[in-house]
Amino acid sequence: MALVPIGVVHSPYKRREDIPRQGRLSKEICEIEVFPEYALGLKDIDQCSHLFILFWLHLGDCSLLLATPPHDHKEHGVFATRSPSRPNLIALDIVELLAAKGNRLTVRGMDALDGSILLDIKPYSAEMDAIPEARIGWQADGGMLEQKGARSEKEAENRK
Amino acid sequence: MALVPIGVVHSPYKRREDIPRQGRLSKEICEIEVFPEYALGLKDIDQCSHLFILFWLHLGDCSLLLATPPHDHKEHGVFATRSPSRPNLIALDIVELLAAKGNRLTVRGMDALDGSILLDIKPYSAEMDAIPEARIGWQADGGMLEQKGARSEKEAENRK
Repeated sequence: MALVPIGVVHSPYKRREDIPRQGRLSKEICEIEVFPEYALGLKDIDQCSHLFILFWLHLGDCSLLLATPPHDHKEHGVFATRSPSRPNLIALDIVELLAAKGNRLTVRGMDALDGSILLDIKPYSAEMDAIPEARIGWQADGGMLEQKGARSEKEAENRK
Repeated sequence: MALVPIGVVHSPYKRREDIPRQGRLSKEICEIEVFPEYALGLKDIDQCSHLFILFWLHLGDCSLLLATPPHDHKEHGVFATRSPSRPNLIALDIVELLAAKGNRLTVRGMDALDGSILLDIKPYSAEMDAIPEARIGWQADGGMLEQKGARSEKEAENRK
Protein backbone atom coordinates (compact mmCIF):
# COMPACT_ATOMS: atom_id res chain seq x y z
CA MET A 1 0.00 0.00 0.00
CA ALA A 2 2.52 2.57 -1.14
CA LEU A 3 1.33 5.85 -2.60
CA VAL A 4 2.67 7.78 -5.57
CA PRO A 5 2.61 11.58 -5.85
CA ILE A 6 0.38 12.45 -8.81
CA GLY A 7 0.76 16.20 -8.53
CA VAL A 8 1.22 19.16 -6.24
CA VAL A 9 -1.07 21.81 -4.74
CA HIS A 10 -0.18 25.48 -5.17
CA SER A 11 -1.92 27.42 -2.43
CA PRO A 12 -1.57 30.84 -0.79
CA TYR A 13 -0.96 29.12 2.55
CA LYS A 14 2.78 28.90 3.13
CA ARG A 15 2.66 28.04 6.83
CA ARG A 16 0.10 26.12 8.85
CA GLU A 17 -0.95 29.31 10.65
CA ASP A 18 -1.66 30.98 7.29
CA ILE A 19 -4.65 28.75 6.67
CA PRO A 20 -7.71 30.79 7.59
CA ARG A 21 -10.21 29.39 10.05
CA GLN A 22 -12.79 29.16 7.29
CA GLY A 23 -10.42 28.03 4.56
CA ARG A 24 -12.91 25.50 3.31
CA LEU A 25 -15.38 28.32 2.67
CA SER A 26 -12.94 31.12 1.91
CA LYS A 27 -12.68 32.71 -1.51
CA GLU A 28 -8.99 31.95 -1.86
CA ILE A 29 -8.02 30.21 -5.07
CA CYS A 30 -5.67 27.25 -5.25
CA GLU A 31 -4.13 25.62 -8.27
CA ILE A 32 -3.78 21.88 -8.53
CA GLU A 33 -0.98 20.76 -10.83
CA VAL A 34 -1.31 17.17 -12.00
CA PHE A 35 1.98 15.74 -13.21
CA PRO A 36 1.97 15.34 -17.03
CA GLU A 37 2.16 11.54 -16.87
CA TYR A 38 -1.22 11.49 -15.09
CA ALA A 39 -2.92 14.28 -17.06
CA LEU A 40 -4.86 11.82 -19.24
CA GLY A 41 -6.84 10.92 -16.11
CA LEU A 42 -8.33 14.44 -16.14
CA LYS A 43 -10.40 13.80 -19.29
CA ASP A 44 -13.91 15.27 -18.73
CA ILE A 45 -13.01 16.63 -15.30
CA ASP A 46 -14.26 20.02 -16.55
CA GLN A 47 -17.79 18.57 -16.41
CA CYS A 48 -17.61 18.15 -12.64
CA SER A 49 -18.65 21.15 -10.56
CA HIS A 50 -17.14 19.88 -7.30
CA LEU A 51 -14.33 17.47 -6.53
CA PHE A 52 -12.96 15.43 -3.67
CA ILE A 53 -9.24 16.09 -3.37
CA LEU A 54 -7.02 13.69 -1.43
CA PHE A 55 -3.58 14.94 -0.46
CA TRP A 56 -0.83 14.05 1.95
CA LEU A 57 -0.72 15.71 5.39
CA HIS A 58 3.05 16.02 5.55
CA LEU A 59 2.99 17.99 8.82
CA GLY A 60 0.62 15.62 10.58
CA ASP A 61 1.66 13.30 13.39
CA CYS A 62 0.70 9.70 12.61
CA SER A 63 1.25 8.60 16.22
CA LEU A 64 -1.67 10.58 17.67
CA LEU A 65 -5.06 8.94 18.33
CA LEU A 66 -6.68 11.82 20.22
CA ALA A 67 -7.19 15.42 19.10
CA THR A 68 -8.49 18.53 20.84
CA PRO A 69 -10.17 20.94 18.41
CA PRO A 70 -9.17 24.51 19.35
CA HIS A 71 -12.71 25.73 19.88
CA ASP A 72 -14.02 22.66 21.60
CA HIS A 73 -11.41 22.10 24.33
CA LYS A 74 -12.38 18.45 24.70
CA GLU A 75 -10.39 15.49 23.51
CA HIS A 76 -11.96 13.33 20.83
CA GLY A 77 -10.68 10.32 18.95
CA VAL A 78 -8.97 11.40 15.73
CA PHE A 79 -11.49 9.35 13.72
CA ALA A 80 -14.27 11.55 15.15
CA THR A 81 -12.43 14.70 14.02
CA ARG A 82 -10.83 16.08 10.88
CA SER A 83 -7.51 16.55 12.65
CA PRO A 84 -4.48 16.45 10.31
CA SER A 85 -2.83 14.05 12.76
CA ARG A 86 -4.05 10.45 12.28
CA PRO A 87 -2.51 7.04 11.56
CA ASN A 88 -2.68 7.49 7.77
CA LEU A 89 -1.95 11.09 6.87
CA ILE A 90 -4.52 11.44 4.11
CA ALA A 91 -6.47 14.71 3.88
CA LEU A 92 -9.87 14.99 2.25
CA ASP A 93 -11.05 18.33 0.85
CA ILE A 94 -14.15 19.11 -1.16
CA VAL A 95 -13.55 21.94 -3.63
CA GLU A 96 -15.39 23.87 -6.31
CA LEU A 97 -13.78 23.49 -9.72
CA LEU A 98 -13.46 26.92 -11.34
CA ALA A 99 -11.34 26.04 -14.37
CA ALA A 100 -9.52 23.11 -15.93
CA LYS A 101 -6.77 23.80 -18.44
CA GLY A 102 -4.33 21.11 -19.52
CA ASN A 103 -2.91 19.53 -16.39
CA ARG A 104 -3.94 22.38 -14.08
CA LEU A 105 -7.14 22.82 -12.10
CA THR A 106 -8.17 26.10 -10.52
CA VAL A 107 -10.25 25.42 -7.42
CA ARG A 108 -11.85 27.19 -4.48
CA GLY A 109 -12.24 25.81 -0.98
CA MET A 110 -8.96 23.97 -0.43
CA ASP A 111 -7.16 24.28 2.84
CA ALA A 112 -3.92 22.60 1.84
CA LEU A 113 -0.50 24.02 2.55
CA ASP A 114 1.42 25.20 -0.49
CA GLY A 115 3.38 22.31 -1.93
CA SER A 116 1.12 19.58 -0.57
CA ILE A 117 1.39 16.31 -2.47
CA LEU A 118 -1.68 15.37 -4.48
CA LEU A 119 -2.91 11.77 -4.16
CA ASP A 120 -6.28 11.55 -5.88
CA ILE A 121 -9.19 13.45 -7.41
CA LYS A 122 -12.76 12.10 -7.47
CA PRO A 123 -15.96 13.71 -8.73
CA TYR A 124 -18.47 14.82 -6.10
CA SER A 125 -21.96 13.55 -6.81
CA ALA A 126 -24.81 15.35 -5.06
CA GLU A 127 -27.05 12.31 -5.28
CA MET A 128 -24.44 10.08 -3.67
CA ASP A 129 -22.50 12.42 -1.45
CA ALA A 130 -24.78 15.22 -0.24
CA ILE A 131 -26.31 14.23 3.11
CA PRO A 132 -27.87 17.37 4.58
CA GLU A 133 -29.25 15.44 7.56
CA ALA A 134 -25.83 14.29 8.79
CA ARG A 135 -25.00 15.31 12.36
CA ILE A 136 -21.92 15.47 14.58
CA GLY A 137 -23.12 15.34 18.17
CA TRP A 138 -20.01 16.63 19.86
CA GLN A 139 -20.22 19.90 17.96
CA ALA A 140 -22.25 22.54 19.78
CA ASP A 141 -24.92 22.68 17.09
CA GLY A 142 -24.54 19.18 15.74
CA GLY A 143 -22.69 20.45 12.67
CA MET A 144 -25.98 21.37 11.11
CA LEU A 145 -26.12 22.64 7.58
CA GLU A 146 -28.54 25.40 8.48
CA GLN A 147 -26.44 26.97 11.21
CA LYS A 148 -23.66 28.78 9.46
CA GLY A 149 -22.23 30.08 12.71
CA ALA A 150 -20.81 26.67 13.41
CA ARG A 151 -18.58 26.78 10.39
CA SER A 152 -15.85 28.68 12.14
CA GLU A 153 -15.53 25.98 14.76
CA LYS A 154 -15.50 23.28 12.18
CA GLU A 155 -12.87 25.12 10.23
CA ALA A 156 -10.83 25.67 13.32
CA GLU A 157 -10.91 21.97 13.98
CA ASN A 158 -9.62 21.33 10.51
CA ARG A 159 -6.79 23.75 11.07
CA LYS A 160 -5.70 22.04 14.23
CA MET B 1 3.96 8.07 2.03
CA ALA B 2 3.44 4.53 3.22
CA LEU B 3 0.11 3.49 4.62
CA VAL B 4 -0.65 1.27 7.60
CA PRO B 5 -3.71 -0.98 7.85
CA ILE B 6 -5.81 0.27 10.77
CA GLY B 7 -8.54 -2.33 10.47
CA VAL B 8 -10.56 -4.51 8.18
CA VAL B 9 -14.04 -4.32 6.62
CA HIS B 10 -16.41 -7.26 7.03
CA SER B 11 -18.97 -7.09 4.25
CA PRO B 12 -21.44 -9.46 2.59
CA TYR B 13 -19.66 -8.93 -0.74
CA LYS B 14 -17.19 -11.75 -1.25
CA ARG B 15 -16.52 -11.15 -4.96
CA ARG B 16 -16.54 -7.97 -7.01
CA GLU B 17 -19.68 -9.11 -8.85
CA ASP B 18 -21.49 -9.53 -5.51
CA ILE B 19 -21.55 -5.80 -4.92
CA PRO B 20 -25.02 -4.61 -5.90
CA ARG B 21 -25.38 -1.80 -8.39
CA GLN B 22 -26.82 0.40 -5.69
CA GLY B 23 -24.53 -0.77 -2.89
CA ARG B 24 -24.05 2.76 -1.66
CA LEU B 25 -27.81 2.99 -1.07
CA SER B 26 -28.54 -0.65 -0.29
CA LYS B 27 -29.71 -1.79 3.12
CA GLU B 28 -26.85 -4.26 3.54
CA ILE B 29 -24.94 -3.93 6.77
CA CYS B 30 -21.16 -3.97 7.01
CA GLU B 31 -18.98 -4.17 10.07
CA ILE B 32 -15.79 -2.17 10.37
CA GLU B 33 -13.24 -3.70 12.72
CA VAL B 34 -10.61 -1.25 13.92
CA PHE B 35 -7.51 -2.98 15.18
CA PRO B 36 -7.24 -2.71 19.00
CA GLU B 37 -4.11 -0.55 18.86
CA TYR B 38 -6.10 2.17 17.04
CA ALA B 39 -9.38 1.83 18.96
CA LEU B 40 -8.65 4.89 21.12
CA GLY B 41 -9.09 6.97 17.96
CA LEU B 42 -12.79 6.02 17.96
CA LYS B 43 -13.60 8.08 21.09
CA ASP B 44 -16.89 9.95 20.46
CA ILE B 45 -17.37 8.39 17.04
CA ASP B 46 -20.83 7.32 18.23
CA GLN B 47 -21.83 10.99 18.05
CA CYS B 48 -21.33 11.08 14.28
CA SER B 49 -24.31 10.07 12.17
CA HIS B 50 -22.34 9.62 8.95
CA LEU B 51 -18.70 8.86 8.25
CA PHE B 52 -16.20 8.99 5.42
CA ILE B 53 -14.46 5.63 5.17
CA LEU B 54 -11.18 5.33 3.28
CA PHE B 55 -10.06 1.83 2.35
CA TRP B 56 -7.64 0.16 -0.02
CA LEU B 57 -8.85 -0.96 -3.47
CA HIS B 58 -6.79 -4.14 -3.57
CA LEU B 59 -8.34 -5.31 -6.85
CA GLY B 60 -7.87 -1.98 -8.64
CA ASP B 61 -5.36 -1.43 -11.41
CA CYS B 62 -3.11 1.51 -10.63
CA SER B 63 -1.85 1.74 -14.22
CA LEU B 64 -5.17 2.85 -15.73
CA LEU B 65 -5.93 6.51 -16.42
CA LEU B 66 -9.18 6.04 -18.36
CA ALA B 67 -12.37 4.27 -17.27
CA THR B 68 -15.60 3.39 -19.06
CA PRO B 69 -18.56 3.28 -16.67
CA PRO B 70 -20.78 0.30 -17.63
CA HIS B 71 -23.89 2.36 -18.23
CA ASP B 72 -22.23 5.26 -19.94
CA HIS B 73 -20.13 3.52 -22.63
CA LYS B 74 -17.84 6.49 -22.98
CA GLU B 75 -14.31 6.73 -21.74
CA HIS B 76 -13.58 9.30 -19.06
CA GLY B 77 -10.45 10.12 -17.13
CA VAL B 78 -10.30 8.14 -13.90
CA PHE B 79 -10.25 11.39 -11.92
CA ALA B 80 -13.67 12.26 -13.40
CA THR B 81 -15.06 8.87 -12.27
CA ARG B 82 -15.22 6.79 -9.11
CA SER B 83 -13.54 3.86 -10.83
CA PRO B 84 -11.65 1.55 -8.44
CA SER B 85 -8.71 1.68 -10.85
CA ARG B 86 -6.60 4.83 -10.38
CA PRO B 87 -2.98 5.70 -9.60
CA ASN B 88 -3.49 5.60 -5.83
CA LEU B 89 -5.92 2.83 -4.93
CA ILE B 90 -7.80 4.68 -2.21
CA ALA B 91 -11.58 4.22 -2.03
CA LEU B 92 -13.90 6.77 -0.45
CA ASP B 93 -17.28 5.68 0.90
CA ILE B 94 -19.82 7.68 2.87
CA VAL B 95 -21.72 5.50 5.32
CA GLU B 96 -24.41 5.79 7.95
CA LEU B 97 -23.19 4.78 11.40
CA LEU B 98 -25.74 2.44 12.99
CA ALA B 99 -23.81 1.32 16.07
CA ALA B 100 -20.38 1.67 17.66
CA LYS B 101 -19.29 -0.91 20.21
CA GLY B 102 -15.70 -1.20 21.35
CA ASN B 103 -13.52 -1.38 18.26
CA ARG B 104 -16.37 -2.31 15.92
CA LEU B 105 -18.65 -0.06 13.88
CA THR B 106 -21.84 -1.25 12.26
CA VAL B 107 -22.54 0.79 9.13
CA ARG B 108 -24.87 0.95 6.15
CA GLY B 109 -23.95 2.07 2.66
CA MET B 110 -20.49 0.60 2.17
CA ASP B 111 -19.59 -1.07 -1.08
CA ALA B 112 -16.30 -2.60 -0.01
CA LEU B 113 -15.33 -6.17 -0.69
CA ASP B 114 -15.15 -8.40 2.36
CA GLY B 115 -11.69 -8.18 3.86
CA SER B 116 -10.87 -4.73 2.51
CA ILE B 117 -8.16 -2.94 4.43
CA LEU B 118 -9.32 0.10 6.40
CA LEU B 119 -7.19 3.25 6.08
CA ASP B 120 -9.09 6.09 7.75
CA ILE B 121 -12.40 7.24 9.23
CA LYS B 122 -13.49 10.88 9.24
CA PRO B 123 -16.75 12.46 10.45
CA TYR B 124 -19.10 13.74 7.76
CA SER B 125 -20.25 17.30 8.43
CA ALA B 126 -23.37 18.45 6.62
CA GLU B 127 -22.35 22.08 6.81
CA MET B 128 -18.96 21.34 5.29
CA ASP B 129 -19.61 18.37 3.08
CA ALA B 130 -23.20 18.47 1.81
CA ILE B 131 -23.29 20.27 -1.56
CA PRO B 132 -26.72 19.59 -3.06
CA GLU B 133 -25.98 21.83 -6.05
CA ALA B 134 -22.97 19.81 -7.24
CA ARG B 135 -23.22 18.50 -10.80
CA ILE B 136 -21.43 15.96 -12.98
CA GLY B 137 -22.01 16.97 -16.58
CA TRP B 138 -21.11 13.69 -18.26
CA GLN B 139 -23.86 11.89 -16.38
CA ALA B 140 -27.15 11.90 -18.23
CA ASP B 141 -28.94 13.96 -15.60
CA GLY B 142 -25.95 15.80 -14.21
CA GLY B 143 -25.88 13.56 -11.14
CA MET B 144 -28.64 15.63 -9.63
CA LEU B 145 -29.79 15.00 -6.10
CA GLU B 146 -33.43 15.26 -7.08
CA GLN B 147 -33.34 12.60 -9.80
CA LYS B 148 -33.08 9.33 -8.02
CA GLY B 149 -33.21 7.37 -11.25
CA ALA B 150 -29.64 8.31 -11.95
CA ARG B 151 -28.40 6.51 -8.88
CA SER B 152 -28.20 3.17 -10.61
CA GLU B 153 -25.81 4.56 -13.19
CA LYS B 154 -23.72 6.19 -10.57
CA GLU B 155 -23.63 2.99 -8.60
CA ALA B 156 -22.74 1.03 -11.69
CA GLU B 157 -19.84 3.34 -12.27
CA ASN B 158 -18.64 2.73 -8.73
CA ARG B 159 -18.84 -0.98 -9.30
CA LYS B 160 -16.72 -0.82 -12.40
